[in-house]
This record gives sequence, C-alpha cells and structure tokens, in this order.
Amino acid sequence: MNMEPSISAPVHSTDKVHESKDMDTISLSSSHCQAHDTPHIHKVGIPPKQNLLKEIKATVKETFFADDPLRPFKDQTGSKRFILVMQTIFPILEWGRSYNITKFRGDIIAGLTIASLCIPQDIAYAKLANLDPQYGLYSSFVPPLIYALMGSSRDIAIGPVAVVSLLLGTLLQNEVDSKKEAETYRRLAFTATFFAGITQATLGFFRLGFLIDFLSHAAVVGFMGGAAITIALQQLKGLLGIQVFTKKTDIVSVLHSVFVSAHHGWNWQTIVIGLSFLAFLLFAKYIGKKNKKFFWVPAIAPLISVILSTFFVFITRADKQGVQIVKYIEKGINPSSVKEIYFSGQYLPKGFKIGVVAGMIGLTEAIAIGRTFASMKDYQLDGNKEMVALGTMNIVGSMTSCYVATGSFSRSAVNYMAGCQTAVSNIVMSFIVFLTLQFITPLFKYTPNAILAAIIISAVLGLVDFEAAILIWKIDKFDFIACIGAFFGVVFSSVEIGLLIAVAISFAKILLQVTRPRTAILGNLPGTTVYRNIQQYPGATKVQGVLIVRVDSAIYFSNSNYVKERILRWLVDEEEELKASYQPKIQFLIVEMSPVTDIDTSGIHALEELHKSLQKRDVQLILSNPGPVVINKLHESNFANTIGEDKIFLTVADAVASCCPKLATEV
Amino acid sequence: MNMEPSISAPVHSTDKVHESKDMDTISLSSSHCQAHDTPHIHKVGIPPKQNLLKEIKATVKETFFADDPLRPFKDQTGSKRFILVMQTIFPILEWGRSYNITKFRGDIIAGLTIASLCIPQDIAYAKLANLDPQYGLYSSFVPPLIYALMGSSRDIAIGPVAVVSLLLGTLLQNEVDSKKEAETYRRLAFTATFFAGITQATLGFFRLGFLIDFLSHAAVVGFMGGAAITIALQQLKGLLGIQVFTKKTDIVSVLHSVFVSAHHGWNWQTIVIGLSFLAFLLFAKYIGKKNKKFFWVPAIAPLISVILSTFFVFITRADKQGVQIVKYIEKGINPSSVKEIYFSGQYLPKGFKIGVVAGMIGLTEAIAIGRTFASMKDYQLDGNKEMVALGTMNIVGSMTSCYVATGSFSRSAVNYMAGCQTAVSNIVMSFIVFLTLQFITPLFKYTPNAILAAIIISAVLGLVDFEAAILIWKIDKFDFIACIGAFFGVVFSSVEIGLLIAVAISFAKILLQVTRPRTAILGNLPGTTVYRNIQQYPGATKVQGVLIVRVDSAIYFSNSNYVKERILRWLVDEEEELKASYQPKIQFLIVEMSPVTDIDTSGIHALEELHKSLQKRDVQLILSNPGPVVINKLHESNFANTIGEDKIFLTVADAVASCCPKLATEV
Repeated sequence: MNMEPSISAPVHSTDKVHESKDMDTISLSSSHCQAHDTPHIHKVGIPPKQNLLKEIKATVKETFFADDPLRPFKDQTGSKRFILVMQTIFPILEWGRSYNITKFRGDIIAGLTIASLCIPQDIAYAKLANLDPQYGLYSSFVPPLIYALMGSSRDIAIGPVAVVSLLLGTLLQNEVDSKKEAETYRRLAFTATFFAGITQATLGFFRLGFLIDFLSHAAVVGFMGGAAITIALQQLKGLLGIQVFTKKTDIVSVLHSVFVSAHHGWNWQTIVIGLSFLAFLLFAKYIGKKNKKFFWVPAIAPLISVILSTFFVFITRADKQGVQIVKYIEKGINPSSVKEIYFSGQYLPKGFKIGVVAGMIGLTEAIAIGRTFASMKDYQLDGNKEMVALGTMNIVGSMTSCYVATGSFSRSAVNYMAGCQTAVSNIVMSFIVFLTLQFITPLFKYTPNAILAAIIISAVLGLVDFEAAILIWKIDKFDFIACIGAFFGVVFSSVEIGLLIAVAISFAKILLQVTRPRTAILGNLPGTTVYRNIQQYPGATKVQGVLIVRVDSAIYFSNSNYVKERILRWLVDEEEELKASYQPKIQFLIVEMSPVTDIDTSGIHALEELHKSLQKRDVQLILSNPGPVVINKLHESNFANTIGEDKIFLTVADAVASCCPKLATEV
Repeated sequence: MNMEPSISAPVHSTDKVHESKDMDTISLSSSHCQAHDTPHIHKVGIPPKQNLLKEIKATVKETFFADDPLRPFKDQTGSKRFILVMQTIFPILEWGRSYNITKFRGDIIAGLTIASLCIPQDIAYAKLANLDPQYGLYSSFVPPLIYALMGSSRDIAIGPVAVVSLLLGTLLQNEVDSKKEAETYRRLAFTATFFAGITQATLGFFRLGFLIDFLSHAAVVGFMGGAAITIALQQLKGLLGIQVFTKKTDIVSVLHSVFVSAHHGWNWQTIVIGLSFLAFLLFAKYIGKKNKKFFWVPAIAPLISVILSTFFVFITRADKQGVQIVKYIEKGINPSSVKEIYFSGQYLPKGFKIGVVAGMIGLTEAIAIGRTFASMKDYQLDGNKEMVALGTMNIVGSMTSCYVATGSFSRSAVNYMAGCQTAVSNIVMSFIVFLTLQFITPLFKYTPNAILAAIIISAVLGLVDFEAAILIWKIDKFDFIACIGAFFGVVFSSVEIGLLIAVAISFAKILLQVTRPRTAILGNLPGTTVYRNIQQYPGATKVQGVLIVRVDSAIYFSNSNYVKERILRWLVDEEEELKASYQPKIQFLIVEMSPVTDIDTSGIHALEELHKSLQKRDVQLILSNPGPVVINKLHESNFANTIGEDKIFLTVADAVASCCPKLATEV
C-alpha cells in the first residue's frame, strides 16, 4: 500500500515515514530553524455556538445522567412504559422471566454455601457492633430478600460485614454505652441504620453516586487493611478469654489490655479451643487458596468449627472452667422495630450522623464488589440504581430489627466461585437463615466465644491486601501515602480518624492536581512534524528562537497564576541558558493548548497578563490547538483579537512554521 | 525556502502542506481506510527512571517552591549571603540603595494624595468595624510603615478597607456587643487582628500562598459587589440620620429599618448635608473617570467634603438640630495594645476563628491588588513573601491598637495614577496620618456622620464591577453562578454566608472538573495526519472500523469509573449507528492519551476493566501518546504487557496505520 506516487526519489531509508515528508531533508541539529513557510489549510475550528439552555442541559446530563438511564423509555408509551418502570425498580421482573432450572441449580448450591458461611459470621459480627447475636442473623434475613428484588448485581452476597459492624460499634459506643443503656444503644443502632438507608437511597435517587468515587481505591485499601488488623486484635479478648478489656480500638490500648491481663486474666481452656480452631480455619483457607476446586472447604469450615466446638463444650461443660459461651440467642424471626427508631429528640441528630458515615462506607464496599464482579462477568451495573436498592434494603432493615447490611467481600467471592447465577442465591441464603432463626438458635447456647473470635480473625485477614498495597506503591507514591495514612490512622487511632485521613488525603490529591498542573517543554522529533516533551523524548530537538511550552491541564482560577508564572519561568531559564552559550534569544513563545480542556475568567486574565509580560520582553505569544471550549472563550473574551487571530494555529508544527521565516531573516 | 527537493511532481495546489505528503493522494471520504502501513521510527519514550527521593523532592519543590525562592542564595557565601537574606526580608534594603530625588518627587505627590483620601475613609471605615474613629487612623499609621520595610509591591496603598472592616464588624458583633461591652469588643478586635496576621505570615512562611487561589476571581467579584451594596445600604443610617437601625446586614432587614423609620426617624438637615456632598463626591468621581488627568479630583474630594461640612456644622451648630456628628476623636498616636490581646480564655478561639477569616479575605484583596499593578508595571511579586510582610504588619498592628489592614483597591489605584514609584508613598501617607493624630483630630469633632456615610458610599460603589460580571457571564457560565451566588449570599444573608457560598461553588467547580472530564471522538483532518475533535472540526472524517476517543484529563480515582464507562458508551453509540447504516463494526478502539497527564491505581484498574470489556466485544484496545508519567505507570503496573507493547503508539496516525492493513484484509 504505497501511497506516495508523487515522490520520485526517496532520499532516506526511512522513506516510509508518513509524517512530514517535507522535513526529511533537514538535519537533526537544533540550530536550524525547521521552517515550513507554507500556508496551513486547516484553521482552528470554532464549534457552532450553542444555545445556553442546551449547554446547561448537556452539562447537567453529563454530570448526573452520564449513563443515560432514561434511554429505554424513549419512544415507549402507556403500559409498556409502566412495565419498563417496574422492571427498572425491580430488575427481578426482568431477569426472572428467563429464569430456569439450570440457573436455579447454580443458585441453590451457592446459596447453601454462603448461608453456612454467613450464620457463624453474623453471630460474630453482631458482637463487633456491640449487639446481641440474633441481630446479626436478622440482618441476614430481611435485607437479602429486598436486595434480590431490587438489586442488579448477580454475585453480591448481602448481610452484615466486619468493617461496617466495627465502625457502627465504635461510633455508637461514643454516644451511648452498650452495656449500661442497652435499649437506647439498640434503638440508636436502628436509627443509624434507617439514616444509612436514607443516605444511600437519596444519593442514588438524586444520582449523586459519583460522590463515593471521592474515596480513592488506595484509601479504601488502607482503611480496610487497618480495620482488619484492628478487628483481629480486638478478637484477642475472645480468643484468650480475657475478662477486662479496653473499649478503645487503637493498637496501643488493645495490646496494653492483652499484656496487663497476661498473668491472671487469660483462660487456657479458651486459648486451646480458640487457637486449635483458628489453625483449622486458616488451614481450610490455605486449601481453598491452593486449589480453586476446594473453594467450599473454607466456606463450610466456620460452620463445622461452630458445630464441633459447641458439641465439645456441651459434653465437657468447659463453660464451667471459664470458657465464655454465647449463652442465649433469641429464637424466632425479626420483630418489628419501627417504633424503636428515634424520629425526634437528642438521638435523632446522632443517629443521623452515624447513619450517614456508616451508609457511605457500606455503599463504598457494596459498589466496589458489584463493579468487580460485573466486570468479571461483563454485565452493566447502574451504580445509582444499586444505591437505591441498598438504601431501600437498609430502610426496611431498620424497621425489622436489622442493623446496616451491605455486600460482603468474602461471601460474595464464595458466592461467585460456588457458581451463583442470579440474586436467587441470596434468597436461598435468606431462607436458611430463616430456618436457623426459627428452629436452631437454642443450639448455639454452648458455642464458645473463642470460636467466633477465630472465625472473625480468619475472615478479616483476607481484607489485608498486601499485593494491592505493593502495586499502589509501584504505581503512585501519593496514592500509597493515602493508603498507609488511612491504615495507620485506623490502627493507631480509630476508624473515624482513619476514615478522615483517607478522605482528606484523597481530596488533597485532587486539589494538588488542579493547583500545580504539569507543564512541559516540547521539541521536534527529528524527521517528523511531531513535537513532544523533551524530557520524555531526549532525541527531540528545540527550535532555535522558539520556546514551545505545553500546559497539561485546564486553566482555572486555582492554577491560572501558577501556569502564567511557570511559563515565564521556563522562558527565563531558557534565556539564561541561551545567553550562557551565546545563542540568539527567544523571539516566539508557543503555548501548546491541546491538553487545556477548559479555561475560565481567571485563566483568560492569566493569558492576558502573560501576553503583556511577553510584549515587554519582545517575545511573541502564539497559541496552538485550543479545544472547542477554549477557542470559544478566547473569542468571547476578545483575547483572540488581542494577540491576533493569525497567532492561533492548528498544530505546533504550523505555529513553528509561522515563526521561522521571520527568524530566518532576522538571525 | 522550499524544503521538498525529493518531490518531483506535486499533484495538488496545496502541495506545500507540510504534514503527511504521503496522504495527499487519499480522498476525503471516510469509507477508505487511511492506511500508513509503514514502520514508525519513533517509539513512545520511556523517561529515565527517577530516584524516589528525587521524585518526591521535585514534587515538593514544584508545589511549595515553584518560584525557586532560594535561587539568589546559590553559590554565595558568608556575609554576602547574610546581606541577601536581609534584603529578602526587607526589600527596602535593596531598592533603597537606588532611591533618588526623582523617585521621591513621585512618591511624595502620591503619598499626599492617598493621605488626603485615607484620612476621611479611615474614620468612616472604623465605624463599619464598630470601632471608635481613631482606630481607623491608627491602622493607617503603623501598618504602612511596616509594609514599606518588608513589602515588595510598589503601588499598593495600605490601611483599613471597607470590606474587611464590614466583615470584621459583623463577625465580632456576632460574639460580643460593641455597644454594651465596648472594651471586650475592642480587645477581641485586636485578638482577631493578631491572628489574622499570624494566619497571613504562616501561610507565607510555609509557602501555602496558593491556598488563596482557591477563591476564584469570579467569586471575589461577586463577593466584593455584594459587600459593596451591603455597605452602601447600611450607610443609609448615617445619610438619613436614622437613630434606630438594625444590626443585621441583609438587604431585607436594612430596607425594613429604613422604611419603618421614614415617618419619624429621618432627619432632613442630615439628609440635605449628606445628599449634597454625596452628589459632589460622585461628580468628582465622574470627572476623574472622564479625564485621567483629573485623577486627583476624586482623591481630594472626600477631604474637602469633610472640611466644608465640618465648618458648616460648626457655624450653624446643626448638631443641635439632630445632625449626628463624630463628637470626639482621641488625640495622639497609637497606644500599645499588647496587653489587650486575649492569649487565653474563651475569647481566644473566637478571636482566632475571626482572625483566620478576616486574614484570608485581607490577603485575597492585597494579593490581587499587588498582582494587578505588578503586571501593569511588569515587575515580579513573590506572593509568599508578600504574605509574610502583610502578616507581620498586622501582628505589629494588633499590638499598637490597629485592626486588620490590607491593600485598598481605590487608594492603590490613586497611588498608581499619582505616580508613586516605591513604597515610600506609604511612608509619606503614614507621616501625614501621624501629624493628623498628633495635632488635628480635635478638629473632626463637628464632622457630620452623614459625610462619612457619603464618603463610604462613593468609595464602595467602585467595588461593584459590572463589566467584570458581564465578562464572566460571557466566558464561563459556571463562574457566573459562583459570582452571583456570592453576591446574593452577601446581599440577602450576610458576609459570612456569601463567603461560604463563594468558597463552596469554587470547590464544586474543581470537583466537577475532576469527576466528569471531557472526552471527544476524533476524526482525521483530510489531507493531513492530524486527528481532531469531530465536534470542533466538522470536516474531520472518522476512520472505518476504528473509534478514536480522546480523554481530556488525568485519570484519577475520582473519574476512573466515569472515564471507562464513557468510553464504552461512545463505543455502544457508535456501533448502534453503524448497525443502523449497515456498516461493518468497530474493530479497534484507540484511546488518545495526550491530555492524560497522570494516572493512578484506580485509573489503571479502569483501563484493565476497559480492556477486558473490549476483549469480550472483540475490539482491540490501542493507546496513543501516553505522557512520561503515564507510560511509566503503564509499565510498572504491567498493563503495557497486558495489552501488548506494540499497541502503544506515538501518534494517533501511527495507531490508525497499525489497524488499517488488518482491516483492509478483513473487510
């Protein structure tokens, strides 16, 4: 496919280089002006002027309805539209119609597997939230059912999770003592759950889902890791049978409690039971990791541990030797808790505040899980719709004695590996939990607390993601600071502080990005008309008498002064260098604006000031390739006229070409 | 300068088009694959790996020491370095050495002019801050002296200003009643001034000056305009001689006060004096605006008004007719107020909070003025050094009975027009204020308050910048929202609310920018190898079977999901369109990454997910022109290997060329 019929005598061996044949003959030296004294056929395009209303509409659409959620409703009428609306709210109506026995086989196996995993976890996690064990089970009964109706993830497993339980427990304990005022504490927990649901549903309904994107992946990794360590350390209480233990969650207080009680507070029977089953659980995990076929081993290991240890305690009556046991779990399904929620009084704002925080963290976890599995199976997940589903599920949950439920990392992974097909696996799990609540809770009486501690430890260790942390270190050092900042914050202080650090560093990163954008000096890649960063391409050569600066960001009020001053500093540096080597001075400054996606009033001011400063130095300002938004604003502010329409070019090469003939005559 | 000796027979009249000669022969139609099946000689450059410490050092330097403040100290030793340090702290040591009589002539005229303007303004502004009139004069005596030693702006006129006075008055009044607890109020004012200075000096010292850039120009225009209207309305009290007046500053309360008192509370003598001198002042302003030569007319008009009206009241004894007068101004220069500052107790945190806010607003005003005049006379202004100077001046001020001083827009403009050469004009002004305090304050006894109100109104009207607002509307609609948001916030609620709105909208804009970056579909400009946004360049043609998307922002956690989903949505839209017109489907998706200046862990994840989704659709992902930071991270995260090194190209044209031969055989 030789497209060069008009070239008779190629002079180079690289004659097929497709860019700028006319430049083949110039040398690699930077001391020659690479002149293309040619008229350029393409001018910088000025997009058609948009109607203001249209512009605002487009912005709002791109911000809030980027995923075009109303698309399927277009060109539909009446009953069809009603069906579509119902299907949108309850996706089960859509996928339910194509549900079949093959899918059900997958779902029932997955459902049974996650049920066996969730029952012991629920009991254990309820303790993290300082609630009685049955509340964990309640939260695995109602919320999964609601989610199955409204959610669109096929793989997520809904229920209480370790981190949210710890967070809720810590925040609630700060307000009310869970021991002394158990009822107030529980009511505040439901209130928080209610507002967590309201927060989630509201964010989804008003399409503000993108707000959770402000918690960066790195910060989440650090936060989760820190929370896992904190949770695991707290389990030393149950695992070692310590009676007197700190209420604080930081590592110093916890280890202090552990060592202070070393001589008189530890219970050896508890330790034996706890450590042996912990070893068993970790071994089961190892097997599951070693061979994916045995994913079910770690999944049922907790239930087996519970059964074995309960039976063991029952026949040995080890509880009389100081081994602490669950003692009592309320039998029967969720009672109503509508009247327990505080809709007024001093606990309303407290519940609201805690609910917002717990709701956001719950969302972050659920959406991250949903997205991960959706991308693995390649189906679309509407984040905002998910939030409405999760929110509704928690609102209903708060009225049926549940506390904040969300998607669980570990159970969702098991669900996926067990071959779940749809959210029916959650229904199956919910049904098993229902049976448990109805019939077998009394059997948990002799379950030793040490087993629950062991189950929590083995579950949360998976949340410490070393590989992710290493990858983050490799890719982005600033991200890594956010990651360890959140981690140390949680471990050495508290979950709230860790969370605060994570959010603060995430924001600092964004602000830094917009305050100190990168700029680069461009040079010509020999033999082409391509101009690139001379730091990245050491072979690129500068053009004599011309300084080409690329600004790598929109020019906004937050960086306009910096950008202006940075460009002037490049000029000063360059001129000093040139002076040192007795070369002619800079006559043209080309600002390559391809990456400048937008400019605001402050940005225009900065350009005007730059232009003035350059005029005083006898340097001509030239712009290259402003985008559609920028060129419009350059015209509307009249800056295009100030520097001259003919000083705005389509490419850097065009701009350089326009400088060079003049240079040639002057130099 | 024909550089094309190797081309024998140009086939086009535009044969001098310098880009891609080899493409001249292909048509304008988009149905042809514009293949350049040539090896490309330049690969994407991978910059040399940087030492981590070096990298961090470079980032810190660019963030905090972007202006390279230590540059002059390099290669200097001993006493020379000491002199340089002293000159850095006290620039007067530097410019003072070349000071001469010519400069002094300019400075003395300018100094006398701004002194005549500042004396009546000081007395009036002190009332805005609910302080006795002498405190305004005090603040025009000490701070300008300190600034003259340490500041580097040559044109700024230092002293109390209207907006800061109003802000301080409002914030202080919220805490302490200025009438009932006058002493506490005054002490709190000094405390706030002290912390305003500390805030300013600290920001400068730690090189955090860029923080004030977060208040956008548009927000400042709106805030200033709103504050000006608020201040002017409040002056109706003095202008109309109303006795009972609201303490609130919002327009509704103020107008209510005015109309309620219409029948019995207005004093006609006051109104006659006030309105006639207001007319005189506005006429003087008009003359000054009409002819720049008469700039001194509006500058001395206030002093003339004061003298005339005082004399008038003195001989007619109008004060006995209900015309309110100043009554008493303390004679003598600033007493020490070191012991009046609250360094402990309940007022410490209040003073701190108010000081931080007032300090930031003062800074914003002073730096804006400094930058404006520096760019007009083309000298460099170090923002951080300025902040240290302004901060020191307010700290010293707080100990010598001054309240927050900063640069005044109106007086600086007069200073500039009167031909000031250096900060000596501030010293001259300060000296005149000193003489006033020492000898003539008793003469102000009969000055009617109505005159002060008229002076304030005529001064602040200049802060309402309609032209700027119109320009903002033209350039950036979002900026305009920030502008009117701040304006209405101040006018209808209070200065704090207006300020809060301004900051909130400014931040929202930054966050929106990083959450919803622009993306564009690129097409080929016929006859070139240039690819541009097809919306901006309707002539650009799409390449068959290839979709080229440009991402116009760094890909960070805050937008990574959006970017991924937006690209996929472009693909879906495009494929639907192609299907509708029975054209072959997309086989290649080129992501043009030139504007992607950085990418973080979340961004890499998003690319990985995009890659997976595309694989499922049988679309090949290709990257074009990643920058130095991005290419490094692509390698470190191993993503470059995942998609294949040979799928990363230097230019879009190269990338398209790589697709086309394959397309040609398959289509």
